[in-house]
Amino acid sequence: MTRTVAVIGSGLIGRAWAVVFARAGCQVRLWDPSPEVRAQLPDTLAQTCTLSGDDPAALANVTICDDMASAVEGVEWVQENGPEKLEIKRQIYADLDRLAPPDAILASSSSALVASSFAKGLAGSHRILVAHPVNPPHVVPVVELCPSEDTAPEAMDRAEALMHAVAQVPVRLSREIDGFVLNRLQAVLLAESLSLIEQGIVTPEGLDDTICHGLGRRWTLLGPMATINLNAPGGVIDYLDRYGPTMARLSDSAARGEAFTDTAAERVAAAMPPPEEVPERTRARDAKLAALAQFLKE
Amino acid sequence: MTRTVAVIGSGLIGRAWAVVFARAGCQVRLWDPSPEVRAQLPDTLAQTCTLSGDDPAALANVTICDDMASAVEGVEWVQENGPEKLEIKRQIYADLDRLAPPDAILASSSSALVASSFAKGLAGSHRILVAHPVNPPHVVPVVELCPSEDTAPEAMDRAEALMHAVAQVPVRLSREIDGFVLNRLQAVLLAESLSLIEQGIVTPEGLDDTICHGLGRRWTLLGPMATINLNAPGGVIDYLDRYGPTMARLSDSAARGEAFTDTAAERVAAAMPPPEEVPERTRARDAKLAALAQFLKE
Repeated sequence: MTRTVAVIGSGLIGRAWAVVFARAGCQVRLWDPSPEVRAQLPDTLAQTCTLSGDDPAALANVTICDDMASAVEGVEWVQENGPEKLEIKRQIYADLDRLAPPDAILASSSSALVASSFAKGLAGSHRILVAHPVNPPHVVPVVELCPSEDTAPEAMDRAEALMHAVAQVPVRLSREIDGFVLNRLQAVLLAESLSLIEQGIVTPEGLDDTICHGLGRRWTLLGPMATINLNAPGGVIDYLDRYGPTMARLSDSAARGEAFTDTAAERVAAAMPPPEEVPERTRARDAKLAALAQFLKE
Repeated sequence: MTRTVAVIGSGLIGRAWAVVFARAGCQVRLWDPSPEVRAQLPDTLAQTCTLSGDDPAALANVTICDDMASAVEGVEWVQENGPEKLEIKRQIYADLDRLAPPDAILASSSSALVASSFAKGLAGSHRILVAHPVNPPHVVPVVELCPSEDTAPEAMDRAEALMHAVAQVPVRLSREIDGFVLNRLQAVLLAESLSLIEQGIVTPEGLDDTICHGLGRRWTLLGPMATINLNAPGGVIDYLDRYGPTMARLSDSAARGEAFTDTAAERVAAAMPPPEEVPERTRARDAKLAALAQFLKE
């Protein structure tokens, strides 16, 4: 049976989600509140496919809808990609909860807001959760699934199963936490990176080289836990016996929030390509991410 | 002119260094204090090449030496891979400083000891530095170059040039810092990872998936600074304006040294392949790292 899903909001992330679902054979109903944005979708969706090397033929599964009600009619899943503003999210979820079929799951791409902040008090809060992707999800497969305390375990089970079915990699969190997992890990690494750069220990380029020609490669193949499991003969327990005290000492002396200074920002910016190159470099990044995903699959 | 280097110590890292230098066309003098280990080197070096797909013909450039003095005779560079014990390192550097040509650079693969701890007071402390690789250096190219306060800038320049010449990626640090850069970044990420796992927010497998199917891929292609430079339309300054306060808040609430608990270690170990599989999985990892290095080069 063909699965039918709605994608609400058609910015970069919404369009990438549309490709994820469409190429997996789902019928996709795509809606954006802006008529101008909707009018451009045939072109912008095709560009999304071009960058990743996805076959645009999959876009035959995408229907562009003129209103939210027709987008969510009869769907089993709604992937919402609205602005990260609490008041807007609350309104969107009040509307979705009213319009979508009662058994549809309502999933937010939010990276900043936890589900309880916009689902609390709604009749359907048991079917509302966060499904936070990495941008753009059609070339980076991980999706953090985070429930509120009202989310039904059965909704999480269905979310996990659907993400597997569309070839994403779901990571299920047990409960809400600020930043989920991914941005918490990114935050600590950024804090220490900015501090080392501001102290002049290493240049921004050297910092990037350390990860992209070093540690990042292991993490991409194995993840941080599987990495340390192979870094001592007796596995992870042996590793933490040997190196845990050193790692604890290093993390105790590491930077935290105070590292996010203007000076650090300016030092990094001076070493990076200028903002005018961001769009072109973003396209190049996405093409490389798609190639890397293909390589890792093989 | 053929470059001649010495590799002191022939464990996993010493053998990988021998391959790095030999395949780049250097004459390599390899010495290990153990006669038994030396006797096995023709076999173990060939295995090192097999795993990475390096042509064992390069090993024709490697001469196995019977003593330190003959290994370092006439070399321009000594790559030392001895045990991470301060008293042993001090003895090794006293010997190397006496035996090696006066203009040879003495570089330690140490990840745990800074150069001043074993070079202080030696006549040649100006030519002693740390060249810390990721294990194994023949498939992961980054090398952290860290001077002591006695190390001459000219020695650092030569170190950087040699690393480029043998196709490694040098990262130059300006001064000593505990853990250098790589392990400081690893430490903060491990601390927060172990905490999230011990709190039951995410499983060890979910934690690894978050990085290896998500954030790690960007970091491998771009590094963390280039990553955030593309995550806001106006580049890194715009990113830190928008998300810096959130990232600061997340890192302020992140775990530090207290996260390295037995409970966390046991929870991770229970999810990982058992220690008996470490050797085989390490070989598989190295083969994959070699393939990834090849992919990234293209």
